[in-house]
Amino acid sequence: MNKQQLFENIKRKRSFLCVGLDTDIQKIPEHLFDESDDPIFEFNRAIIDATADLCVACKPNLAFYESLGIAGWDALERTVDYIRLHYPDLFIIADAKRGDIGNTSAMYARTFFGNMDFDAVTVAPYMGEDSVSPFLTYEDKWVILLALTSNKGAFDFQFIKDENGETLFEKILKTSQNWGNAENMMYVVGATKAEMLAEIRKIVPEHFLLVPGVGAQGGSLQEVAENGLNSECGLLVNSSRQIIYASSEADFAEAARSEALKVQTEMEFILEQKELI
Amino acid sequence: MNKQQLFENIKRKRSFLCVGLDTDIQKIPEHLFDESDDPIFEFNRAIIDATADLCVACKPNLAFYESLGIAGWDALERTVDYIRLHYPDLFIIADAKRGDIGNTSAMYARTFFGNMDFDAVTVAPYMGEDSVSPFLTYEDKWVILLALTSNKGAFDFQFIKDENGETLFEKILKTSQNWGNAENMMYVVGATKAEMLAEIRKIVPEHFLLVPGVGAQGGSLQEVAENGLNSECGLLVNSSRQIIYASSEADFAEAARSEALKVQTEMEFILEQKELI
Repeated sequence: MNKQQLFENIKRKRSFLCVGLDTDIQKIPEHLFDESDDPIFEFNRAIIDATADLCVACKPNLAFYESLGIAGWDALERTVDYIRLHYPDLFIIADAKRGDIGNTSAMYARTFFGNMDFDAVTVAPYMGEDSVSPFLTYEDKWVILLALTSNKGAFDFQFIKDENGETLFEKILKTSQNWGNAENMMYVVGATKAEMLAEIRKIVPEHFLLVPGVGAQGGSLQEVAENGLNSECGLLVNSSRQIIYASSEADFAEAARSEALKVQTEMEFILEQKELI
Repeated sequence: MNKQQLFENIKRKRSFLCVGLDTDIQKIPEHLFDESDDPIFEFNRAIIDATADLCVACKPNLAFYESLGIAGWDALERTVDYIRLHYPDLFIIADAKRGDIGNTSAMYARTFFGNMDFDAVTVAPYMGEDSVSPFLTYEDKWVILLALTSNKGAFDFQFIKDENGETLFEKILKTSQNWGNAENMMYVVGATKAEMLAEIRKIVPEHFLLVPGVGAQGGSLQEVAENGLNSECGLLVNSSRQIIYASSEADFAEAARSEALKVQTEMEFILEQKELI
């Protein structure tokens, strides 16, 4: 999916919501284990069916699938295939935070863009250009590079200032623009640091930003939008636990829809206010 | 495996070699496809059988297995199980370069230390303490944190100096000592930057260092040893392609043994010279 198509979907669905599929076998409703041999996939399918008209993206977190070994990879592949078949307008992000020397990153790129049909993969910047560029060779596929993350540990290294007073995450934003562009790179910017978004927008005015941390991690959607929106929206705001675990009973999909609808309604209001729709 | 056991193995085997299992389906000998339904595992088994007395560690690179989907994960799990059963004294490293917010890193830790019986996993430092600490809660298991990598992209961010003249990788070495210790943390330091090892040893005198980049990437074993050895050896030097792809014919395992023997012989000489054995 290219940037224009993504923006068209945002306008049509009146939403810039990404639903995080952090599907945890210890948290999904018990009745799914009785009804299916693949409760992880069944859970994802129900969540997607219930929310696909309210969101523009979804984001399986690889850790949750890997922790189940082969069964987890199978559920992940089935989930991606299901979305591609039934909801081709959903932008699918592999939240994998990969990154290694060139020949190894090329293998990861093949996994997520060749074997599986993800639109984007999150990548860690520490190893520099040759760890990122193999992901940029696939047409209409995206790298989402970690810039400023939503966790407490973000303060350990990401705010280190160099001799010119530039922070590490700013340096990453600037340097990585030599590797890709706003058509094939996005950045992770945590909602828990929304006050930094205005500054980040000055460095990357045209790039989409993937914003985790709204909801369970405490970030505010209004504040994110105020500081982060650009003329093509430029934001994908992720919510995981608050939506997918809204209920642990048989009504979990309805409850997820209800939570997603709340967020989409707020997003619609914001998009109208900013005259983007 | 704890540090003392690792050092005992190094002395007994007269080697600090780690064999990198970057097993690429496009590079393994063709006859394996005729002989087995799981040529990746068969390749690994033959390499391990041929080199296990010459090395103290082995390091499957996750990217190569993930790129094969379910079949790859199956081969990886079988490889780890095979090593555990037949060579319990081999230190097994998951070269995965993971790292995410706390609850997600906990999932990755469960994958590599709970479900599979790896001794160590490589972790990227960018997201800070809570992305690393979940891996440190398993007894006799290790985090191997990226400090100074062997690739060209290492120069993009790892050498950035802060206001006090301290580089990012030095800061990571120092800060991370508050998270773990020399009994549960190692660091990746590329052999292509062996001249930096003496400085790094001053910051982390007691930690083991995992050194990639000897061989195919051009690093020198002598130089690494000169600058990196400590009183408990303190080095695991990895070689992947030079050993496992020494031959692409039916004699690949013998050829791998022959290459591993060359490295082990050089290591034995170094260990004797330094009076560590």
